[in-house]
Amino acid sequence: MELFYAYEVTGRLCRLDADESTHCIRVLRHRSGEEIDVIDGLGTLYHCRLTLDSPKGAEAEILETRPGWGSHPYRLTIGCCPTKNNDRFEWFVEKATELGVDRIVPLIGEHSERKVYKTERAQRIALSATKQSLKARIPEIAEPQEVKSFIAAAPEARPALRLIAYCFEDPSVPRRSICEVLKEQADVKDITVLIGPEGDFSPEEAALALEHGYIPIHLGPSRLRTETAAVTAVEAVYLWSLTL
Amino acid sequence: MELFYAYEVTGRLCRLDADESTHCIRVLRHRSGEEIDVIDGLGTLYHCRLTLDSPKGAEAEILETRPGWGSHPYRLTIGCCPTKNNDRFEWFVEKATELGVDRIVPLIGEHSERKVYKTERAQRIALSATKQSLKARIPEIAEPQEVKSFIAAAPEARPALRLIAYCFEDPSVPRRSICEVLKEQADVKDITVLIGPEGDFSPEEAALALEHGYIPIHLGPSRLRTETAAVTAVEAVYLWSLTL
Repeated sequence: MELFYAYEVTGRLCRLDADESTHCIRVLRHRSGEEIDVIDGLGTLYHCRLTLDSPKGAEAEILETRPGWGSHPYRLTIGCCPTKNNDRFEWFVEKATELGVDRIVPLIGEHSERKVYKTERAQRIALSATKQSLKARIPEIAEPQEVKSFIAAAPEARPALRLIAYCFEDPSVPRRSICEVLKEQADVKDITVLIGPEGDFSPEEAALALEHGYIPIHLGPSRLRTETAAVTAVEAVYLWSLTL
Repeated sequence: MELFYAYEVTGRLCRLDADESTHCIRVLRHRSGEEIDVIDGLGTLYHCRLTLDSPKGAEAEILETRPGWGSHPYRLTIGCCPTKNNDRFEWFVEKATELGVDRIVPLIGEHSERKVYKTERAQRIALSATKQSLKARIPEIAEPQEVKSFIAAAPEARPALRLIAYCFEDPSVPRRSICEVLKEQADVKDITVLIGPEGDFSPEEAALALEHGYIPIHLGPSRLRTETAAVTAVEAVYLWSLTL
């Protein structure tokens, strides 16, 4: 099954941009009258008939609409400090998209070696992983934020489950495994997990998170790279949702 | 914490090969008399004192021995068909090693596009991921085998839990999620999971696996790439072990 992304859906018409049109018309040689499947990136799949087979801007008429196609039964935000090596963070974006994530926020922590992150490549990776894994909703790649401002700005609305994974041990605030915490939360569907940089979160960042209702967690005994920790958090939520 | 790999441990002496010695002596500039941590790749950490600081072949005297250092409470074999793109399979080897895996068997399936796989690079990646994630045991990267011969040769000894993940639906043999199956197996510690190629296992391969006591599983509703499915299987076992 091949999916195309429509940058615009108006009335009964889906419009593909130049990249998608070239792929659809020039590479895959689809022609007017043929049926194709189009996603709007917001969660809806449109089964369409191609009406304009231009490689510059193809158009397709909507025959059938499937809202929530390929969706998952939770809303997951991962706030993660980008790795020194960009490939590793982009690999996390691809895997998280395949599994099911809604929002990825590149965070700049006090211990981050990478203080700047451009989201364009990650957005392209998220689009291609969304199509490859047969989903209709492209996860949002937010603009980078500082850890403390993200924590302070996090919405207070319940029932949002907020988790922060850090590696140091604070006897006064014992960490529990992400699985143990999720198991208690069968009713919670709106989850945010924070993953720190190679240098971990600073004690101040962790303390601020706890003040804002974050639950301190660990991801098991293995020492995981930043991007592996981030994928493990997505896997924990994805696998947990299979048990609901 | 920096770990060095000893290719030979005899009596009270650990010997590093040329690569490890160069890294230890030339790059990190350790000198005789300094204390270093050495793994034998079989599960034991040795805290040592460097006695010969030669970049061609360093030697260290064992001060303290820690068997089972950085081990995990299960024995996991992943039989996985290598991906067309080698990087993707090698990425799986790195992530599985970080999380905790014991044996990786590259499988050649009837639908495999890749019929040949060389294990040298994967072995180097497994060693470096073992050291990076602070473990003393390097997972075995087996020589490639055909899916059917691996299944037929798989040891019959119980209590080994054998799982096979394929994507097609056989109404007569419904698949259950890997989490559901693991949850029933708190006593089982020896687990094998088979992950097919991009083209999936053939119905004959799946049937043979069921004959040999494999339980058919799925990894959830998302369509996952081969390497993502393989990592998800490792994550499921790793996260499941946190709940025991």
